[in-house]
Amino acid sequence: MARSETISFLSDYGLTDEFVGVVKSVIRHIAPHAAVVDIAHEVPAHDVRAGSLTLARAAQYLAPGPVLAVVDPGVGTDRRAVAVESEENGLTFVGPDNGLLAAAMAMVGGAKRAVSLTNADFHIASPGPTFAGRDVFAPAAAHLAAGVDLAELGDLVDPITLTPGMVPLAREEEGALVAEVLWVDRYGNAQLNVDPDEITQYGDRVRLRWGEQVRTARRAFTYADLRTGEIGLVVDSYGLVSVAMERRSAADELRLRPGDAVSLDAPPDQ
Amino acid sequence: MARSETISFLSDYGLTDEFVGVVKSVIRHIAPHAAVVDIAHEVPAHDVRAGSLTLARAAQYLAPGPVLAVVDPGVGTDRRAVAVESEENGLTFVGPDNGLLAAAMAMVGGAKRAVSLTNADFHIASPGPTFAGRDVFAPAAAHLAAGVDLAELGDLVDPITLTPGMVPLAREEEGALVAEVLWVDRYGNAQLNVDPDEITQYGDRVRLRWGEQVRTARRAFTYADLRTGEIGLVVDSYGLVSVAMERRSAADELRLRPGDAVSLDAPPDQ
Amino acid sequence: MARSETISFLSDYGLTDEFVGVVKSVIRHIAPHAAVVDIAHEVPAHDVRAGSLTLARAAQYLAPGPVLAVVDPGVGTDRRAVAVESEENGLTFVGPDNGLLAAAMAMVGGAKRAVSLTNADFHIASPGPTFAGRDVFAPAAAHLAAGVDLAELGDLVDPITLTPGMVPLAREEEGALVAEVLWVDRYGNAQLNVDPDEITQYGDRVRLRWGEQVRTARRAFTYADLRTGEIGLVVDSYGLVSVAMERRSAADELRLRPGDAVSLDAPPDQ
Repeated sequence: MARSETISFLSDYGLTDEFVGVVKSVIRHIAPHAAVVDIAHEVPAHDVRAGSLTLARAAQYLAPGPVLAVVDPGVGTDRRAVAVESEENGLTFVGPDNGLLAAAMAMVGGAKRAVSLTNADFHIASPGPTFAGRDVFAPAAAHLAAGVDLAELGDLVDPITLTPGMVPLAREEEGALVAEVLWVDRYGNAQLNVDPDEITQYGDRVRLRWGEQVRTARRAFTYADLRTGEIGLVVDSYGLVSVAMERRSAADELRLRPGDAVSLDAPPDQ
Repeated sequence: MARSETISFLSDYGLTDEFVGVVKSVIRHIAPHAAVVDIAHEVPAHDVRAGSLTLARAAQYLAPGPVLAVVDPGVGTDRRAVAVESEENGLTFVGPDNGLLAAAMAMVGGAKRAVSLTNADFHIASPGPTFAGRDVFAPAAAHLAAGVDLAELGDLVDPITLTPGMVPLAREEEGALVAEVLWVDRYGNAQLNVDPDEITQYGDRVRLRWGEQVRTARRAFTYADLRTGEIGLVVDSYGLVSVAMERRSAADELRLRPGDAVSLDAPPDQ
Repeated sequence: MARSETISFLSDYGLTDEFVGVVKSVIRHIAPHAAVVDIAHEVPAHDVRAGSLTLARAAQYLAPGPVLAVVDPGVGTDRRAVAVESEENGLTFVGPDNGLLAAAMAMVGGAKRAVSLTNADFHIASPGPTFAGRDVFAPAAAHLAAGVDLAELGDLVDPITLTPGMVPLAREEEGALVAEVLWVDRYGNAQLNVDPDEITQYGDRVRLRWGEQVRTARRAFTYADLRTGEIGLVVDSYGLVSVAMERRSAADELRLRPGDAVSLDAPPDQ
């Protein structure tokens, strides 16, 4: 099999402990030719949903090769460890079968082949119980980068048995679109699970309701088009509608957090 | 043109979102031979001044090649996207023309050539509005590393038209030197825009005044020369005077923050 | 001498300032062929003990080559700058002789040869006082990676003169094992300086006492074996006993911090 020059890597390990460094060191022993590109490691601890969305946003840009992704609150349970080849872009996702990989896999054409990482010849020994990232996932990703075929890493499994993702769809309800905050980015923009087409019917001004709050937002082309203090609905660089303010955090200002439900419709007095 | 083996990279993207990873993935598709050296990505969001100073402190140490620098609160306005070749050290800065690059450029001999990144052949397509770091700046830096000449990336512009920096100079006022806190580092040392020569006239003990506070500091050669609790003025490793305490944060203790004005002179009863 | 393809790097520099990036840039000038693997840079500022333990946990996994490690509150004192070759695994630790390296060195068979980094030909000039990481340690690590022999970097010193580590041993006291929290990881697990064998005598349930607190913990094989809210004693992936809870932070819940003393024995009514 062909070697890969790149291994992409996402986790919830944080950067304070040595976990990320140890995983990269393990990779370096097995596949010293491969560069590791960090996607993100400050995914909130155990937050499979946040990790899944971060991975999905990055997926279409990743360099061909293994994609090591570990957010794994169920380590020690019987959740499977898997490697999954994508139909497009030449990626092989390696991680827990807990839904983390599903949305990203969908972004690159779905799964072509999958294995359960059961072949212990490709694991490394642990001084204590298994640290899956270090002992199972990292060696698997590194051996793939070194040219080992997916099928050697364990038993082939039907991709249809992989745990599906949990990305919610917006829904119509009493003339409003009930959406969800998918992500609050570094700048405080709150991305919704809404395509721009879904809200054209409401016109230039859109009423937002969440919790006890009701506010009116204006559709704008860029953040810079907004006046100071104005709430905007801007199509972000991933093509989704996000709640934004100019040079300040809309999420802080409006107390929006990932997972919050937001209802969108036309303001009543239009 | 010669290829570059290194791309240096500074941003305010933070390390929680996937922005840094996506930019590196984009680079990897275009210039897989180049290593990316991260300068810093936790520059406070939208803080052009802090980013500019961080970049300037690093500039003289950077490996030859493109320097991708993105702190860009004006994305979506008509601020230019530029690439600027330095006179010395073989650097080409790539980023927004908003003053971010100016101080660093001055550290390496000024600008030799500059272009506005107007050639869309070297941009990548976005699923939404342009994410300049990913779609314009990263491809430009990568193509430069791959050997594309600066002039191919867009229209040549006169370097004199580039936005100047905002680094303040200390000034004499009523016998005192009115300085500014440029930077508070990880250890709480507060770097001032003051050369050691500018305060020799005040002798070994220097009065500091800021806000409502008045304190006396002692000049010391190293942090370790200070007694516990004593306030020191130490020349830092960049050659500038900084307010420091031994093994604790002077900035926290004295409530000094970047941008604060600090007045230095001789204590009155000397 | 043989070149090394990898330089591992740990520090307390944090990722907000440019320190890590500048050190890597310095390395890149001297040893452009070498990849730098970051172990961790968010070690708490000046916390030699935390840095030492982080380095020791990573040591056995590191790729052969120089290991640059800088947590250096005594910069500017007469503490030595050293490079130390390990007996096993082909590592050469480069850093301050303040105890930071000792525990890691012990994990890889102890020291074979050591030098004090006194040869200024392998330092770089500073615009101000020496920034040891940038001006002394980084060039030393890079020259080692480029094939320079240890003995060229300065005066050979007897490894027995190196500052020892400060890793505490658990001790028996009035029928209880008095242990210490070595580390609180990203997930809130509190690692103790206790081997599983040391507590088998207490059986399946173990009384924990710290400060004014008394709680009973249950020994479990994995985090997932714990019920919600239950306190567990789990052998972690480094082979040490840690206080853990299922999908929440035991350290936050129980207010355990690194360095806290914890007494373990059998519950009284067993």
